[in-house]
Amino acid sequence: MKIGMFQTPFVAPHRSAAQVFDWAVRQAVVADEAGFSEYWIGEHATLDWESIPNPELVIAAAGRVTKNVKLGPLAHLLPYYHPASLAIQTAWLSQILQGRYMLGVATGAYPSDAALRGITDLSINHRMMLEAIDIMERVWKAEPFQFKGEFWKAGFPEPDPKKHYRDTRPYGGKMNMAMTGLSAPSPSITFAGTRGYLPASVYAGNAFLRSHFETYAEQANANGHPVNRGLHRVVRDVFVADTDAEAHRLATAGGMGLAWMKYLKPTYERFGVLKGLLHDPSVDPTDVDIDYLAKHVWIIGSPETVSEKIEQWFDDLGGDFGHLLIYSHDYLDDPKPWEESMRRLASEVAPELNRTLTSV
Amino acid sequence: MKIGMFQTPFVAPHRSAAQVFDWAVRQAVVADEAGFSEYWIGEHATLDWESIPNPELVIAAAGRVTKNVKLGPLAHLLPYYHPASLAIQTAWLSQILQGRYMLGVATGAYPSDAALRGITDLSINHRMMLEAIDIMERVWKAEPFQFKGEFWKAGFPEPDPKKHYRDTRPYGGKMNMAMTGLSAPSPSITFAGTRGYLPASVYAGNAFLRSHFETYAEQANANGHPVNRGLHRVVRDVFVADTDAEAHRLATAGGMGLAWMKYLKPTYERFGVLKGLLHDPSVDPTDVDIDYLAKHVWIIGSPETVSEKIEQWFDDLGGDFGHLLIYSHDYLDDPKPWEESMRRLASEVAPELNRTLTSV
Repeated sequence: MKIGMFQTPFVAPHRSAAQVFDWAVRQAVVADEAGFSEYWIGEHATLDWESIPNPELVIAAAGRVTKNVKLGPLAHLLPYYHPASLAIQTAWLSQILQGRYMLGVATGAYPSDAALRGITDLSINHRMMLEAIDIMERVWKAEPFQFKGEFWKAGFPEPDPKKHYRDTRPYGGKMNMAMTGLSAPSPSITFAGTRGYLPASVYAGNAFLRSHFETYAEQANANGHPVNRGLHRVVRDVFVADTDAEAHRLATAGGMGLAWMKYLKPTYERFGVLKGLLHDPSVDPTDVDIDYLAKHVWIIGSPETVSEKIEQWFDDLGGDFGHLLIYSHDYLDDPKPWEESMRRLASEVAPELNRTLTSV
Repeated sequence: MKIGMFQTPFVAPHRSAAQVFDWAVRQAVVADEAGFSEYWIGEHATLDWESIPNPELVIAAAGRVTKNVKLGPLAHLLPYYHPASLAIQTAWLSQILQGRYMLGVATGAYPSDAALRGITDLSINHRMMLEAIDIMERVWKAEPFQFKGEFWKAGFPEPDPKKHYRDTRPYGGKMNMAMTGLSAPSPSITFAGTRGYLPASVYAGNAFLRSHFETYAEQANANGHPVNRGLHRVVRDVFVADTDAEAHRLATAGGMGLAWMKYLKPTYERFGVLKGLLHDPSVDPTDVDIDYLAKHVWIIGSPETVSEKIEQWFDDLGGDFGHLLIYSHDYLDDPKPWEESMRRLASEVAPELNRTLTSV
């Protein structure tokens, strides 16, 4: 199992854009130095708790100060861009990063993000995403075409004997694509399977994770794409400290606790998936407080405790997976314990787990 | 007169995307350290001699390693983006750069860039730009609206008592905008005057420059915008070295000569403005070779020679202007003399000239 990070960013709304941007780049550097394999960045134009509207601006900056970690948006909301322009931008960045770029895509689920683009009926977003992907794939081939779809016009120019065009193909000829899913069944995870995109599950309980991977494997198999648990990314919260008590204090009193109580718990409720996080179906969701999250939802503690909890998780899940992506949280005022947690997760917990795992 | 740079980029087509990107960031750092006031970056999706498709990726990276220089695209080609998404992106970058961001906009003049977006009739581009600007200005106000235009739908969401939106307004509440013109009369310079955008003239002879500033001043006056020659940006080629002979060698044998012979001279011919560069109307344009360029078009030589040539230029022009923007050229294989030229232009030539100028 490899370790990665998902920088949504869960940074408190009072932070400035410069703070959010600096933190996102700084977290990429720490992730790279700690040996994380990938660093994903969310995109939302309007959300005050996920306030990076353009992940690629962060990636362009982070690419220069990182060496090995792969970088990617998770996810570009395809209905909100001209697909040819986005194809050009993403291919250029993949060329610049020379193999360290991956592209997460999504339909967009937030009405306020959609409203900016004059979209009031989000049921069209999936069709928009499909058309956008078709256009992007054609632009990436860099062969002449003309296309007029339901939502966009696009094309690629005919050869001109008097001049050459800049190379608009992704690095290595192919874009490495990914999609996230939260609820189950997840239309996004299903779609990822049909296309052979990397599947990333935002954690909402083991039942959902099992469903995600089963759906993915079924669709990928049916469409001739490789299937193994090593492809599966799972997003969850982890805090590693010297002791369980210290980890509890840092997680609950810091950015992790703040994001969950102020933003994530209400968001899970709104999407109707909070019940997936309950360890026992008899728990009343209104009883979920910060100590419940610390005990049953987050994976926090000493390196030994975190290793044990992840092993137990795999046992409950019926197998491991390829990439544990941890959320980044707002530890701007006191970054050291958080950054130390990232390093210990990669250098102590993951190697310990990998002695017994099969997926990597 | 202040010194700035226009990174189009004129980097040779055989350079990789990573080289182009690194060079663009490196030039921003040198410009900043040399005391340049601004650094503009061009945008073209398909052109192999102007191969930055996304200036803001460069700006996001350059902003972190520069302190004072202002950064901006020159120009974003507005028809090729969803205006609300571009408004969000540019406002976010202006927030991150806290006053160091400026936004150049344009209609787009290259058929191959347009073809990518399914546009075969570029006569619609000006109308698209106007609609895009209207949408962007409304998004930047962050007040609810719904809009359905000829080309796009856009809006801003109604307030939601359950959540706040991220601040989508530009830093300081107002976006500092600019436009370039080449030919005369220039529809772009005229438009810049009506809106009070900063006017930037790509050099095609003094007659065009005079026309540009007159048009700008007339329109700005008529529309209640401030007018002074200090607002006028002019783009031209400069190389400063120890001696005139050394400057001639470095300019003609290096990136400046390569870009002009391979790309710029043919481009000026195609746009019908090569004749503007001739010092005498009786010169046959086919006689324009690299030595002609070095003598009559570029401003190259020792610091004393360059100062004298610029003074003579101002005399011929009938006045000075506010910002001399020099083109960046492909000196990737031997950057030091070029970077030294940038430093001497800012530290020796400009102060010498500024003793006698009135526009600054």
